Amino acid sequence: MVAGNVPLELTAKNARIICEWAGRPEVPVHAGCERPLLRTLVTAEHVHGRTGLDGVPLHEPAMPLQPEHAVDFIIRTLREREAGTVTLCMLGPLTNLAMAIVRAPDIVGRIREIVLMGGAYFEGGNITPSAEFNIYVDPDAAATVLACGAAITMLPLDVTHKATASPARIGLLRALPNRAGNLAADIMTTLERFDVQRYGVDGAPLHDPTVIAYVLQPGLFSGRKVHVAVEQNSELTLGATPVDWWGVTGKPANVNYLTTVDSDGFFRLLADNLSTLP
Amino acid sequence: MVAGNVPLELTAKNARIICEWAGRPEVPVHAGCERPLLRTLVTAEHVHGRTGLDGVPLHEPAMPLQPEHAVDFIIRTLREREAGTVTLCMLGPLTNLAMAIVRAPDIVGRIREIVLMGGAYFEGGNITPSAEFNIYVDPDAAATVLACGAAITMLPLDVTHKATASPARIGLLRALPNRAGNLAADIMTTLERFDVQRYGVDGAPLHDPTVIAYVLQPGLFSGRKVHVAVEQNSELTLGATPVDWWGVTGKPANVNYLTTVDSDGFFRLLADNLSTLP
Amino acid sequence: MVAGNVPLELTAKNARIICEWAGRPEVPVHAGCERPLLRTLVTAEHVHGRTGLDGVPLHEPAMPLQPEHAVDFIIRTLREREAGTVTLCMLGPLTNLAMAIVRAPDIVGRIREIVLMGGAYFEGGNITPSAEFNIYVDPDAAATVLACGAAITMLPLDVTHKATASPARIGLLRALPNRAGNLAADIMTTLERFDVQRYGVDGAPLHDPTVIAYVLQPGLFSGRKVHVAVEQNSELTLGATPVDWWGVTGKPANVNYLTTVDSDGFFRLLADNLSTLP
Amino acid sequence: MVAGNVPLELTAKNARIICEWAGRPEVPVHAGCERPLLRTLVTAEHVHGRTGLDGVPLHEPAMPLQPEHAVDFIIRTLREREAGTVTLCMLGPLTNLAMAIVRAPDIVGRIREIVLMGGAYFEGGNITPSAEFNIYVDPDAAATVLACGAAITMLPLDVTHKATASPARIGLLRALPNRAGNLAADIMTTLERFDVQRYGVDGAPLHDPTVIAYVLQPGLFSGRKVHVAVEQNSELTLGATPVDWWGVTGKPANVNYLTTVDSDGFFRLLADNLSTLP
Repeated sequence: MVAGNVPLELTAKNARIICEWAGRPEVPVHAGCERPLLRTLVTAEHVHGRTGLDGVPLHEPAMPLQPEHAVDFIIRTLREREAGTVTLCMLGPLTNLAMAIVRAPDIVGRIREIVLMGGAYFEGGNITPSAEFNIYVDPDAAATVLACGAAITMLPLDVTHKATASPARIGLLRALPNRAGNLAADIMTTLERFDVQRYGVDGAPLHDPTVIAYVLQPGLFSGRKVHVAVEQNSELTLGATPVDWWGVTGKPANVNYLTTVDSDGFFRLLADNLSTLP
Repeated sequence: MVAGNVPLELTAKNARIICEWAGRPEVPVHAGCERPLLRTLVTAEHVHGRTGLDGVPLHEPAMPLQPEHAVDFIIRTLREREAGTVTLCMLGPLTNLAMAIVRAPDIVGRIREIVLMGGAYFEGGNITPSAEFNIYVDPDAAATVLACGAAITMLPLDVTHKATASPARIGLLRALPNRAGNLAADIMTTLERFDVQRYGVDGAPLHDPTVIAYVLQPGLFSGRKVHVAVEQNSELTLGATPVDWWGVTGKPANVNYLTTVDSDGFFRLLADNLSTLP
Repeated sequence: MVAGNVPLELTAKNARIICEWAGRPEVPVHAGCERPLLRTLVTAEHVHGRTGLDGVPLHEPAMPLQPEHAVDFIIRTLREREAGTVTLCMLGPLTNLAMAIVRAPDIVGRIREIVLMGGAYFEGGNITPSAEFNIYVDPDAAATVLACGAAITMLPLDVTHKATASPARIGLLRALPNRAGNLAADIMTTLERFDVQRYGVDGAPLHDPTVIAYVLQPGLFSGRKVHVAVEQNSELTLGATPVDWWGVTGKPANVNYLTTVDSDGFFRLLADNLSTLP
Repeated sequence: MVAGNVPLELTAKNARIICEWAGRPEVPVHAGCERPLLRTLVTAEHVHGRTGLDGVPLHEPAMPLQPEHAVDFIIRTLREREAGTVTLCMLGPLTNLAMAIVRAPDIVGRIREIVLMGGAYFEGGNITPSAEFNIYVDPDAAATVLACGAAITMLPLDVTHKATASPARIGLLRALPNRAGNLAADIMTTLERFDVQRYGVDGAPLHDPTVIAYVLQPGLFSGRKVHVAVEQNSELTLGATPVDWWGVTGKPANVNYLTTVDSDGFFRLLADNLSTLP
């Protein structure tokens, strides 16, 4: 876990709460960096509430945090597992992964794929007119990751804004006969209220679940292999991710940049998976 | 005229050719700056050809250039005319207007409106992934103009890419019984070839005519009053025009930023006006 | 005249007051730009007082400002005079000269030499830790001038801080039997008080007179032909003038950068010239 | 050890060779990061030769590298030792320390003092006109360290250029009756040749030994408590360390910035200490 929508202490707690909801307390949760590489931490309580998971009652998790730092966990796992077998799913700012790459560049060649939620191009940003939140919080980490040479798939706002939790779709989850469906529906309802008010859309974009959905069922998505850079030097456009969609820069593609999603298929996959939980 | 798609000598010649085609040799054409405020001139012969008007036979214009520099013409006109009566239609890089503002800041309060073709936000750029050509060529001039305090309407790629010269629409112009319709059709056919090949669109966007169309019939367009800035400090995103569409920056609106056009209505207006020419 | 230590209205007045003190009311004084190319005007009343000439009684000048704008005066003069005969002595921000170069690039080849007070390298800056005032006020104009290709001699803080008006040297001027000597002594005494307090030096540096001294008697100074750039993109170091003193960048020399002065000789020259005035 | 003058593999070897020369093979040497936080590694073989220690015969060290990564060593040591007792002596780019701070911000409050060789203000830079080598290689790490809040003493080029190994001073070391004196004299002779040729100085500046000299005998040095920043955003001035020597920025002092050294005293200290070695 990394600091992001809320400070590290809370994200590390929320991850464990969710594992326990899912009946998976054996999943190891490692706390990582509590601040970005270079910048002051920016958080997003205005969206996700003070807890980072507003909309549902939160318990004190019983499962422990792992004693190992998340950066060490990334390095050790990649070195221990067979090269080319580990896919990294990144749902927040990329600080931990960038720290691992700077410290142990040998791990890059062992990564199968990095799948990350972040960036925006055809859509504007969500934290500033130019930048998506995960990239904005640590643009230097993002640039380090995008330049590392591993295979990378990005799920930017351009695609997550098409995976919206409309009232009808939230209804599908709420109709599930288990607790997980209801919890997901409650969280989405809280988020939806924010986005519908603010942006006039039909529902909150489900940013992070798209990463796992892509890993499970890549055919739900489509995009293009392109060059993506990260703005690090200008305060105005900090964290922007200009995408060379038309190949005008001559720079080689470093990212599989996804822009479309079968959003009904995506929600069916989400509901199917939630239905297997307690 | 300012240097832009092609160098100043050619743009100053092409403007006079077009006046003569239109039967309006009395329209005064003033040459202005041949270079941007600070940067080296970038041109766009790869789009518009070596002449800047490829696709039609060009004659040597008989009408003269005015002896007065375009910057002086802007300043003098705004000072001579009644305050609040002059609308400035800007179809290229904004160097001349910025030079006039730096030299004679008093003119700003006398401008009725600046209507300019430039910028991109929801669409990516056309000269780089981040920037539209007119802004990219002289981002410093653009920033000076956007910050000047006058009323400004921008027609960015977000709207001009919806005003495309499809084969059907070009056919309407070619069917006009006069020379002007055929010349316009020939120029658009050349441009269309470039854009269809490169971008897979249904026709070339008609960037510049949208400015005059807006002045003649503003109801064809819609947009939002927002804050627009210009990236001047980063090589990566130079000339980007981040638009605060959702009002997250707290900065006051400085631009009427247009994003939609009734494109059939726009083409009818264009055809109607062309039909009155020789 | 350009806006600088104080706004344009005052610098344009002060220049005429000084011409009248010198008995030279026929010298044409042209007002130029009242703002920098791109930035908001920064002034230096904390050094030079609200009038820009604190320390002496100021009268209302009888001689008029010329009607011609200073930018036009520069362009016209360079075009009318024989090429290679005009030396431009720049004592403030370089806005007017940069505006002339952008508007009429042909003048560059007609300049004999640009001699300018500005910049700092071995000394730190005086308005910020990185920048000297004249460059800081309009770094974009300075960059345009330094890149123009004409012969340029710079008198930076590295040399002007060695041309200090110590009490003994001020005494020499005060002992002159004319008004000019006493006025100069009064102005320097006011400046000295500021610098001695603030910087603990033995007297105020005489920045601007070094430019004319160099033109009259270049042998008083020495320096090196080097590459000098101007920082335009970073707020922290805005207006810094990094000098490639040791030739590590491989960029060709664009400036004769002066670092030493025979300061007693400089003061003798100053006193000799002041003694010829009323 | 960190990559710097030469790549990490060589600096980690050279550190052990020196420990063995000094008869101190029990000193733990930990290898750290082989690349800067964000930038591509720049090295300085043109100064220090391909080995990083040109001028003396180098053996294969018998003492091992420690298995612990240098970043972990810094964190563990600061956490294990009593708070306020550990002084960190930094002789190269600051990557390892910055990585430790990002990963474990709690260590900052336990540091007694950071004493580092790096930066330049009154002197120009040595790797570019604006920047000193150690800061230039990892300006982002330097900025992280300078902003961390611990007590910091900097030994910039402004002071190390006054601690030059003139032929006379090298002679003192060569006259020592032990191997260490002769090895030091040989290395300095090689460095001297480079600097005398290039910069016309009387001897090579002894950059790194000033750090230890300051810790042993701070009275040899003097400076001022000031605010020092690091340029991270501009390619032109990357790694510059503007020093607010005159207190014009209003920012609080974060560095004890040393500018003078009793250079004969410094060399006596150096000779005295070398004389105790084999």
